[in-house]
Amino acid sequence: MTGIVKKRSVKTGLLPGSLIHIGEKKESTVKIRCFEYNEERCVEKSFDDMKEYEAPKDKGYITWLNVSGVHQVEAIERIGEIFHLHPLLLEDTMNTDQRPKLEDYGDYLFIVAKTISFHRIDEAIKIEQISIVLGPDYVITFEEGDGDIFDVVRERVSTGKGRIRKMAADYLAYSLIDVIVDNYFTAMEEIGEKIETLEDELVTTTGQTALRSIQHLKREMIFLRRSIWPLREVMASLERGETCLISEQTHVYMRDIYDHVIQVMDSVDTFRDMLSGMLDIYLSSVSNRLNEVMKVLTIIATIFMPLTFIAGVYGMNFKFMPELNFRWGYPAILLLMAGVAVYMVEYFRKKKWF
Amino acid sequence: MTGIVKKRSVKTGLLPGSLIHIGEKKESTVKIRCFEYNEERCVEKSFDDMKEYEAPKDKGYITWLNVSGVHQVEAIERIGEIFHLHPLLLEDTMNTDQRPKLEDYGDYLFIVAKTISFHRIDEAIKIEQISIVLGPDYVITFEEGDGDIFDVVRERVSTGKGRIRKMAADYLAYSLIDVIVDNYFTAMEEIGEKIETLEDELVTTTGQTALRSIQHLKREMIFLRRSIWPLREVMASLERGETCLISEQTHVYMRDIYDHVIQVMDSVDTFRDMLSGMLDIYLSSVSNRLNEVMKVLTIIATIFMPLTFIAGVYGMNFKFMPELNFRWGYPAILLLMAGVAVYMVEYFRKKKWF
Amino acid sequence: MTGIVKKRSVKTGLLPGSLIHIGEKKESTVKIRCFEYNEERCVEKSFDDMKEYEAPKDKGYITWLNVSGVHQVEAIERIGEIFHLHPLLLEDTMNTDQRPKLEDYGDYLFIVAKTISFHRIDEAIKIEQISIVLGPDYVITFEEGDGDIFDVVRERVSTGKGRIRKMAADYLAYSLIDVIVDNYFTAMEEIGEKIETLEDELVTTTGQTALRSIQHLKREMIFLRRSIWPLREVMASLERGETCLISEQTHVYMRDIYDHVIQVMDSVDTFRDMLSGMLDIYLSSVSNRLNEVMKVLTIIATIFMPLTFIAGVYGMNFKFMPELNFRWGYPAILLLMAGVAVYMVEYFRKKKWF
Amino acid sequence: MTGIVKKRSVKTGLLPGSLIHIGEKKESTVKIRCFEYNEERCVEKSFDDMKEYEAPKDKGYITWLNVSGVHQVEAIERIGEIFHLHPLLLEDTMNTDQRPKLEDYGDYLFIVAKTISFHRIDEAIKIEQISIVLGPDYVITFEEGDGDIFDVVRERVSTGKGRIRKMAADYLAYSLIDVIVDNYFTAMEEIGEKIETLEDELVTTTGQTALRSIQHLKREMIFLRRSIWPLREVMASLERGETCLISEQTHVYMRDIYDHVIQVMDSVDTFRDMLSGMLDIYLSSVSNRLNEVMKVLTIIATIFMPLTFIAGVYGMNFKFMPELNFRWGYPAILLLMAGVAVYMVEYFRKKKWF
Amino acid sequence: MTGIVKKRSVKTGLLPGSLIHIGEKKESTVKIRCFEYNEERCVEKSFDDMKEYEAPKDKGYITWLNVSGVHQVEAIERIGEIFHLHPLLLEDTMNTDQRPKLEDYGDYLFIVAKTISFHRIDEAIKIEQISIVLGPDYVITFEEGDGDIFDVVRERVSTGKGRIRKMAADYLAYSLIDVIVDNYFTAMEEIGEKIETLEDELVTTTGQTALRSIQHLKREMIFLRRSIWPLREVMASLERGETCLISEQTHVYMRDIYDHVIQVMDSVDTFRDMLSGMLDIYLSSVSNRLNEVMKVLTIIATIFMPLTFIAGVYGMNFKFMPELNFRWGYPAILLLMAGVAVYMVEYFRKKKWF
Repeated sequence: MTGIVKKRSVKTGLLPGSLIHIGEKKESTVKIRCFEYNEERCVEKSFDDMKEYEAPKDKGYITWLNVSGVHQVEAIERIGEIFHLHPLLLEDTMNTDQRPKLEDYGDYLFIVAKTISFHRIDEAIKIEQISIVLGPDYVITFEEGDGDIFDVVRERVSTGKGRIRKMAADYLAYSLIDVIVDNYFTAMEEIGEKIETLEDELVTTTGQTALRSIQHLKREMIFLRRSIWPLREVMASLERGETCLISEQTHVYMRDIYDHVIQVMDSVDTFRDMLSGMLDIYLSSVSNRLNEVMKVLTIIATIFMPLTFIAGVYGMNFKFMPELNFRWGYPAILLLMAGVAVYMVEYFRKKKWF
Repeated sequence: MTGIVKKRSVKTGLLPGSLIHIGEKKESTVKIRCFEYNEERCVEKSFDDMKEYEAPKDKGYITWLNVSGVHQVEAIERIGEIFHLHPLLLEDTMNTDQRPKLEDYGDYLFIVAKTISFHRIDEAIKIEQISIVLGPDYVITFEEGDGDIFDVVRERVSTGKGRIRKMAADYLAYSLIDVIVDNYFTAMEEIGEKIETLEDELVTTTGQTALRSIQHLKREMIFLRRSIWPLREVMASLERGETCLISEQTHVYMRDIYDHVIQVMDSVDTFRDMLSGMLDIYLSSVSNRLNEVMKVLTIIATIFMPLTFIAGVYGMNFKFMPELNFRWGYPAILLLMAGVAVYMVEYFRKKKWF
Repeated sequence: MTGIVKKRSVKTGLLPGSLIHIGEKKESTVKIRCFEYNEERCVEKSFDDMKEYEAPKDKGYITWLNVSGVHQVEAIERIGEIFHLHPLLLEDTMNTDQRPKLEDYGDYLFIVAKTISFHRIDEAIKIEQISIVLGPDYVITFEEGDGDIFDVVRERVSTGKGRIRKMAADYLAYSLIDVIVDNYFTAMEEIGEKIETLEDELVTTTGQTALRSIQHLKREMIFLRRSIWPLREVMASLERGETCLISEQTHVYMRDIYDHVIQVMDSVDTFRDMLSGMLDIYLSSVSNRLNEVMKVLTIIATIFMPLTFIAGVYGMNFKFMPELNFRWGYPAILLLMAGVAVYMVEYFRKKKWF
Repeated sequence: MTGIVKKRSVKTGLLPGSLIHIGEKKESTVKIRCFEYNEERCVEKSFDDMKEYEAPKDKGYITWLNVSGVHQVEAIERIGEIFHLHPLLLEDTMNTDQRPKLEDYGDYLFIVAKTISFHRIDEAIKIEQISIVLGPDYVITFEEGDGDIFDVVRERVSTGKGRIRKMAADYLAYSLIDVIVDNYFTAMEEIGEKIETLEDELVTTTGQTALRSIQHLKREMIFLRRSIWPLREVMASLERGETCLISEQTHVYMRDIYDHVIQVMDSVDTFRDMLSGMLDIYLSSVSNRLNEVMKVLTIIATIFMPLTFIAGVYGMNFKFMPELNFRWGYPAILLLMAGVAVYMVEYFRKKKWF
Repeated sequence: MTGIVKKRSVKTGLLPGSLIHIGEKKESTVKIRCFEYNEERCVEKSFDDMKEYEAPKDKGYITWLNVSGVHQVEAIERIGEIFHLHPLLLEDTMNTDQRPKLEDYGDYLFIVAKTISFHRIDEAIKIEQISIVLGPDYVITFEEGDGDIFDVVRERVSTGKGRIRKMAADYLAYSLIDVIVDNYFTAMEEIGEKIETLEDELVTTTGQTALRSIQHLKREMIFLRRSIWPLREVMASLERGETCLISEQTHVYMRDIYDHVIQVMDSVDTFRDMLSGMLDIYLSSVSNRLNEVMKVLTIIATIFMPLTFIAGVYGMNFKFMPELNFRWGYPAILLLMAGVAVYMVEYFRKKKWF
């Protein structure tokens, strides 16, 4: 299950802007990849230590610095110094329980987004944080995991496919967010399939496990909503062009992502409605089973109680019970019993209890 | 059932503006119909390949290009080149999971709407996408299916009925949206009849199928809402006249459609409320049946248990049981039993259990 | 029951502005009444055919044209010609499934409202449409039925009671809407009484009919809400004085109606809440009855099962059962049985099952 | 119970501004008290007939006219004439089903508020209307009842305690509203105690009366909400200072009342949530009792049915039943029965049914 | 449990601005700590009586006055005189049932916030009020309790750690609010753990106590929401910089707190959703247990009723019952009974009732 509240209390009382990693503990080293490109050229570097980094000497390059892993304070601090980033921004990149948001620091924009992946086996949704800093000629991305989500963009930058090399840094930022949102669709499809499977299961099995699965998925939907919904506002204000870091030309692309985010939200809402509907069906099928059980009990009791009573009557030891001495008394009583049973069965058949 | 999530993941990682058809696979060729008209004349052409298309030589004509089928990349691309449409717009015409929306590209408006049809036999609502591009003197419509929904408009343009030939391109766009929204009323009526049928069924049968039908229709209502609700905003901003492509004169017509969309939404909401009410009635009738079953069981048990007990007492083998030797012991006991039974029946009648 | 969706589909594909009556079919002729008045004089005419109508020759008169019945195309068309009304407006007067709305056509305002009446016998709410056109010196009212709702206004105009004859056309329009809204209070009172009756019934009878009545009234509330709520916006924009057809002086009167509409809406919402509460009580009383039935069954079974068992034991045919030969065996066992029964009854009394 | 809809229908068809009292019929005479004060002096008069009233001759006095009882048309009319009040305002003072509201008539403000009192014995909330007219140098208050709610203000004015005599009429109006809102807190505390009592009762008794009490209080909460919520808007616009009748200095006092109203609303909402929670607990405890009843039944049946069966077997009259002739047959069977019973009891103990 | 309504009624009828402590009665003396600092120096004083306080003689100092305990009228009054605070503000510091709010008094800001602490043993959330007055060069804090929540800030001011001594009074105010909000995270974590414990308990035990715990926590969530939600608006308007008391530089810090408040609110909402889900699971498990109980009853009854009937038949005393004299009659009947029992068991196994 997605952790409900990340251990943020370790930060209580610390100075504002203190850098402490909040999230899963990690041992692996931070991996930094750097692209410097313009329309003609593209240089790719990769290192483990920010000390090796050197700013490009010539102007006219766009720098994309990709940091995989946000648990090492030194690396983050060093980047902050080189690019003159605000301490609160650096703090936010390390606290991986941020909501998606857009902050305008004047010289650069700070965008926080979430990646979503769904593991079908344990039905768990994994949410990781990606922070993007967009400056006039650079983009810095901080990934919580060491995901390969940006590989398609890396390839486009390396090979110069599409127009990415011809455009400014804002288009690179757009491409990165676009890839994140495209991945939402993949996760949605998988969740959708899981829900449909669950729906089929619901027809046959009616144990408590189905109920727990539904409740579990419903809760995951809440987390999804929290991780995606604020991104809508982020994209809306990027589209409206409230900052001069996004060029006129790129607005239409931001609007496109905005549309996609809304489509994803529609799916999340639909899933929630479907799960609620499934819950109703589950609960009503529990009632129906109870009904069925009660009917069986009632039918059996209603047939055998009168019969047992009749048998009881002729088991009495009165001296003067003339029927007991009749030659055909026994068969007659058996016939009477059969008659009562048949009548009862017919009665229930008429009432459509079978 | 309406597919929950369309297979959008095939697009993940592709360049923005890549043209790939998302939706049901189709084999049929794309059919293109073209009207060029002004108040005096109207020329109609029809072809399968956009290469055959030639722009009208004289000014003063309004062009309506109708594309049935959006699954052929070449045709869409060619139209994009001829009319200088933005790649993201072309992408959206092919991705048939768009929400209804209005996008202002400056030189032209892009409107996405949905057609709705209801098939009574399989209780399925079919939703298809229609994209409309409105330029200063042209309208391009992309239909997902090869529907005949626009036939009434085609006839009006051909025959010059009404004022359509006297008006500008924005009036043509209005007429097209008007036809789409008029069709919503037809679908609503059919769904309404289906719901009323279901309501009548609910009185007689109370199986799980009724429940599933209700839940199924409730879910369809969610899809309907998603397909119609955003159109309200589209019409509102067309009415407000935020773009100069819609003339002052046409605003009042747009307002009319706006009203109609709200009326349709009212129906959808009413249907949802009705279905919720039906669910309540269903669930309560399940409880009532359980109650009835329990009453039958209780009545039977309450009558026969004391009787069986009495019979049991006189079936005991004690040596000294004076009643057993009474001459009228047996008939007296039978009378006692009858008395108990009658008392019980009266008791239940007084309690109104019958 | 109020029809859910009126037969609007007959209009599909027709030219915008086509006049077709949507609503209940009617045979009766349209009745037109015309008042021409100023402070000194008041002329009243009445005719069946608009051809007889002549505009007043002198200026300085206010004309009130009242059309009862909107199912005759010719009459509506003729009025449209005389007063230069927009075709879409005329269309809306005939389509009686409009929502209440205010449309500003520049030279005149178009107001759609609904009258509400409640018939206690069949618990049905009847909603009829009234359209009001307010010009600088004329008011035209279109009534769906041939109601007498405006009789009080007619009398005031005829007799010159109050200040209606001294005021302009906007005050006449105000008076008409005021009468409509005043009638809402009457309907609300009757519905309120119906609900209170139903609430009393709920205490005694608990059949499915009560449930259906509650659900039925709940649905009617939805229709009421739809018919009244939009009027609030209409009155709000009349009060704000967004149009010059309403004089400064009349704003305070419009605000008064606005307040009344909100009061009516408050009642509708209260009724909905009350009906929901009644539904809860109904459902819980069904559960309670089940509980009661189960208790009776349990008490009977718990008392007689041990007794029957004891009787069964002494009905066994073992040779060596010393108790059977005891002189006081039988009375002792009877006493034992009585003891068990008394203990059980006490046990249930302690548990407060009685 | 609070009447759901007051008899407003008597007004239907009357001229706007007609004065008719709506509310409980009353016989008592109207009581009018008048204060004329400035910083130095304070004159108090009291009369039953407005004819005795004379406006103060000197300028520089603030007049507070307090009318207890709004059912006498003449008194209200006379006040209207003296202070030049709008007929619709007078109408509203007599119609005691107004919502709280603020109306700006230019020369004076009209404020409608509600007093709330809770009677613990019959659990009824009594809501009465208070209308306040605030002019440049006068305040007129109309009370529905002859309440003593304003006694504290009267005393302050008489004795010159606090700053009330040094301030203008707007501060007097503030003091009056402040007293009304302070009384809300008293009512809230009493309702809160009632709810806590009810909550304790719910643990012990589980009859239908508890349910009806909860539902009754829930409905009262709806009426409270309706009576208080609109006051928030009233205070907000008084605080914003949209009118020049409220001096800059008094804004901060109005903001204080605004805060108090929101606190009261918070309490009302909390009460509603608590009542909903209590409803849930009630319903679940009904289910739990059913469960308990069923368990008792099942335990009894499961223990005695096998025993009765065994007894039945040895009550059969077969000639060749060897056990019947065994010396220790009877005690052995009794032991077997005891064994079965013990096993069953253990089984249920393991299943934690006890 | 958190008190629902604090005893505010004691204030009814008092003059506005009257100082009376509302909240828990306290006996302890008020503790006042005073810091006067600038970048170079920091003087700390501590006294019990405000009379000992002297304003710093030199300019250029920032004064932080911390009052622990708000139940002594004299101390509060004296502070009001020294710093020229509005009487209503002083009243609010003593009424500890305020909602979080921001009030701009021109010369100083008044901020009310709440501290939250969760005690795991009695599952109670403790909410205390903290009022902050921010002037141009002073900050006054009023704590309801004598909490040590501000110790970390005190230490920073004393030791000059961080930039707090270099910044103006607004940064001090920020630091204080930051500490309050940081403590929310700690409380949230503890509540989160409590909820997860409760969730685990729900799997094993299903008594009414679990239900009461859930309901109790749900109610606490309502109080939490009320205590935190308004703080969001406070921070939003501090961030927007509507007052000149907050410097440009500090806005970004306020935005940071704003984000944190929203994160905390997200947690509260998630907790509510989780508790609702747990309620559903609880209720459904009650139903399931009922089902299980009914199944046991039905199985036992369905097996033993036919057997008892058979035994009853051969317990009848008819003279002519040939089976009774068969040599193998008894074993044959026993076999028949075993057959019936096996058949029944198989039937239930097939129906998956085991």
